[in-house]
Amino acid sequence: MSSVESVDITMANSVAAGTNKATRRIVASGIGGKLMGTKSMTQVTAEELARDSVAQLLAKDKALQQKYKKEKHISEQPWTSSNWYQHINWLNTALVLAVPLVGCIATKWVKPTWQTLALAFVMYVASGASITAGYHRLWSHRSYRGRLPVRLFYALFGASAIEGSIKWWGHSHRLHHRYTDTDRDPYDARKGFWYSHIGWMLLVPNPRFKARADISDLVDDWVVRVQHRHYLAIMLFMAFIFPALVAKYFFNDFWGGFVYAGIFKSFFIQQATFCVNSLAHWIGVQPYDDTRTPRDHVLTAFVTFGEGYHNFHHEFPSDYRNALKWYQYDPTKVIIWITSKIGLAYNLKRFSQNAIDQCVLQQKQKQLDKQRAKLNWGPQLGDLPVWEKAEFFEHAKNQKGLVIISGIVHDCSEFLTEHPGGQALLKTSFGKDATVAFNGGVYAHSNAAHNLLATMRVAVIKGSGAGNNTYDQQIKALAEKTRKLAEKAE
Amino acid sequence: MSSVESVDITMANSVAAGTNKATRRIVASGIGGKLMGTKSMTQVTAEELARDSVAQLLAKDKALQQKYKKEKHISEQPWTSSNWYQHINWLNTALVLAVPLVGCIATKWVKPTWQTLALAFVMYVASGASITAGYHRLWSHRSYRGRLPVRLFYALFGASAIEGSIKWWGHSHRLHHRYTDTDRDPYDARKGFWYSHIGWMLLVPNPRFKARADISDLVDDWVVRVQHRHYLAIMLFMAFIFPALVAKYFFNDFWGGFVYAGIFKSFFIQQATFCVNSLAHWIGVQPYDDTRTPRDHVLTAFVTFGEGYHNFHHEFPSDYRNALKWYQYDPTKVIIWITSKIGLAYNLKRFSQNAIDQCVLQQKQKQLDKQRAKLNWGPQLGDLPVWEKAEFFEHAKNQKGLVIISGIVHDCSEFLTEHPGGQALLKTSFGKDATVAFNGGVYAHSNAAHNLLATMRVAVIKGSGAGNNTYDQQIKALAEKTRKLAEKAE
Ligand code: HEM
Ligand code: HEM
Ligand SMILES: [Fe+2]
Ligand SMILES: [Fe+2]
Ligand SMILES: [Fe+2]
Ligand SMILES: [Fe+2]
Repeated sequence: MSSVESVDITMANSVAAGTNKATRRIVASGIGGKLMGTKSMTQVTAEELARDSVAQLLAKDKALQQKYKKEKHISEQPWTSSNWYQHINWLNTALVLAVPLVGCIATKWVKPTWQTLALAFVMYVASGASITAGYHRLWSHRSYRGRLPVRLFYALFGASAIEGSIKWWGHSHRLHHRYTDTDRDPYDARKGFWYSHIGWMLLVPNPRFKARADISDLVDDWVVRVQHRHYLAIMLFMAFIFPALVAKYFFNDFWGGFVYAGIFKSFFIQQATFCVNSLAHWIGVQPYDDTRTPRDHVLTAFVTFGEGYHNFHHEFPSDYRNALKWYQYDPTKVIIWITSKIGLAYNLKRFSQNAIDQCVLQQKQKQLDKQRAKLNWGPQLGDLPVWEKAEFFEHAKNQKGLVIISGIVHDCSEFLTEHPGGQALLKTSFGKDATVAFNGGVYAHSNAAHNLLATMRVAVIKGSGAGNNTYDQQIKALAEKTRKLAEKAE
Repeated sequence: MSSVESVDITMANSVAAGTNKATRRIVASGIGGKLMGTKSMTQVTAEELARDSVAQLLAKDKALQQKYKKEKHISEQPWTSSNWYQHINWLNTALVLAVPLVGCIATKWVKPTWQTLALAFVMYVASGASITAGYHRLWSHRSYRGRLPVRLFYALFGASAIEGSIKWWGHSHRLHHRYTDTDRDPYDARKGFWYSHIGWMLLVPNPRFKARADISDLVDDWVVRVQHRHYLAIMLFMAFIFPALVAKYFFNDFWGGFVYAGIFKSFFIQQATFCVNSLAHWIGVQPYDDTRTPRDHVLTAFVTFGEGYHNFHHEFPSDYRNALKWYQYDPTKVIIWITSKIGLAYNLKRFSQNAIDQCVLQQKQKQLDKQRAKLNWGPQLGDLPVWEKAEFFEHAKNQKGLVIISGIVHDCSEFLTEHPGGQALLKTSFGKDATVAFNGGVYAHSNAAHNLLATMRVAVIKGSGAGNNTYDQQIKALAEKTRKLAEKAE
């Protein structure tokens, strides 16, 4: 009888990496390819790729990984005065640090006007939304389908944020989700706040932890392909020239547009997006899952166009929403919803409320279990000595304060003065079985009283069938009694 | 081998009722005894009592209860035009309704001055606090010990609230706690908001449900005895004459003092105290116990000098506090605390934080269990058919979408288009065992994914030892793998 065939892990992994397809794998050519580390991570350019088959690509990855298994890659070597420059990814550093620096210097000559600042803000919103609603929720997570106009807009204004192409961004983001908090996570939060914020871009990544994710669905979209192939040109135009021209045309302030609606706008969007990788993995609560670092925080949401409910997002990545409640700040969700209302987006994906409530409940249960463990519930029945009745008499002779309730022996000597029901009643019960009296014969004690009683347990009476939850037993016995009374009355 | 002697219920009940003692049982003589129903409920006056022994008292109760078991007591007869006046406890009605009415009429001639209103407020606070800190938390619940000055103050100013003597008030309040929400509860919330607010005082109570609580500790205090014996005189003086004299002496406004600092002051305190029995059993939350009607609400607290956290109070009656958190309104707790700081009170009782946290936790667990029951967790393992491997192949032939994960067969056909990890990977797993791939071989799925998976269960593979919580299994397997890798690396 043949056993059930298991999924072939290597094959499945190649499917998950998308290396099983000979589809058009385009990697930015020339300088574009080098951009944003595409080059260094995949070490291939479009030309080289055309020649290599996918299998060779995989073989190359393997070879690199083997090589750096023995040899120490620069990223694993300590920083020394001689090798410090090799650690740095100079291209990214230029784009993310040098350019804004230039912008700061330029402010000496180029003064902001309120019109240019207004334009900068508009550009900020348009490009920011293109990253969150486009790069992230449309392309990386396929949480909805976008029609051409919307895809074109996001592709153009997304490029103006100088965060790399949709293809590159989507690929590293899918890796981030699949390998969250591990070495293969491109912006691994475990490596520190600044690493996950910006360090990962400025440093040369360790090829040993290179990974691939299937982005064939992205590459099938010509908008993605074109944006990726001509990324450099589109980026330079949309990030700097376009805003400068608009500023020139409307309020004759080319350089104002270039510096404020160009350089600074991109700087702020980059920092906002970086916060999703840093802030959102550091501050806030974890209502849906606490096994990984992502967290929910309204502050992160404000800074990142609503990408602040990251604990929810990592647990339910293909949901187009980031914030569920109406009062939670998620303008991106609203933008997506509006585009769907005007027919530019459709098939907005949501996880079922059932699935979401399940996670919330499981997390609450975990918190409760933690708190429960911290409280004193008294000894468990299993840990108590078992006494015959005779033994009880023996002990009761020289130990005052022993009372049997629900088959369990309790030492209530220290409780005498504290008993809300007074000392007399408790004293009358010493050395006796007070089950009926305690459970309603005299007074139906509260749940708190049963909890208190449990802390005084010293032994179990043999064959008494004692149960741990004596309060439930009281409730059941009382219900039984009332039911019998009602029957007799009829 | 003699069995363990059980507590004698009748004897214990007589101890709980205090009828086992021949201590000085004083019941207000004459008109005082009639007051506040003391008379009607116990049908004895001090003189009669002196003659009767406790046993006869009990026999009388029994006889009354037997008598009204057959005959219908007025309280069990419907209201008719001929018997309506028999339903009413005219004395209480006079004190609680008629007197305030007189006050309202008097306002035509007696105009309030701000001084008299200020005096009225001071009297309101002094008498109100005497009820909550004195009658209730000191005497009824013994939640602390009070020195003579404090006891005298509370006895005098408590009488001015016209709510009966300490002895009478304490006795009915102890019954309220012991028999909450049952027929023997003097102000049983189940009989409706207005009944528990004021109805119970204005109507003749049903002797069938007469009950007794041990108040021997109260009667041992001469302050209680004196206040009870001379209640009428003390009440009339402190409620009306004293404030009138003070008003006359300071601002020559005898009748103003009489009406506002007398009649109205008492009216408002009575209504405030009545709210503890009505409002506190109707509005608010139940963080400590939900098997009985008492509730916590800040509104009730404002109206009742801080007796608003009634859910806490009924669960922890001998705690001198009603509100635990600093921001919760409980001036009575503060008064008690202050009197203890100036040496006029001591032995302030508190339940342990452990006991309190236990109740909160158990209530939260109940809420969670209720929510859990409402969610769809998919079929339990026990309810699933058990398939041999051969059966799985059989089914998989004509039913696309069957995947085995962790020894459980799932039908994932409808999930194909929804799978965040894409269709390709899921398709490759159809008809196969995808345990390793699903649990980290390809991607370590989230807890949400495992919850989702559980809703697609259709069968269990024989002898697979499948467990209900597949996510825990994944976590354990991954931890095991990392541990082995670490060992190998050393
Ligand atoms: C053996 C351990 C006992 C413990 C730990 C205990 C605990 C308590 C507690 C916490 C209360 C406050 C009200 C409540 O929470 O329900 C209470 C009240 C009371 N208990 Fe006990 N009790 C014990 C034994 C007994 C026995 C054996 C009797 C009677 C034979 C008794 C009779 C009463 C009565 C009559 C009250 C009501 C007092 C009132 O609410 O005014 N208790 N007890
Ligand atoms: C059989 C039922 C399956 C269910 C219910 C399921 C569910 C999910 C869910 C909810 C996610 C979103 C991320 C997460 O919550 O962890 C996900 C992601 C993923 N799944 Fe599955 N999955 C299934 C089968 C598989 C199989 C058999 C494979 C591989 C052989 C697979 C590979 C992946 C991958 C690679 C991702 C990561 C996508 C990303 O986070 O970007 N899944 N799956
Ligand atoms: Fe993240
Ligand atoms: Fe994401
Ligand atoms: Fe109450
Ligand atoms: Fe009380």
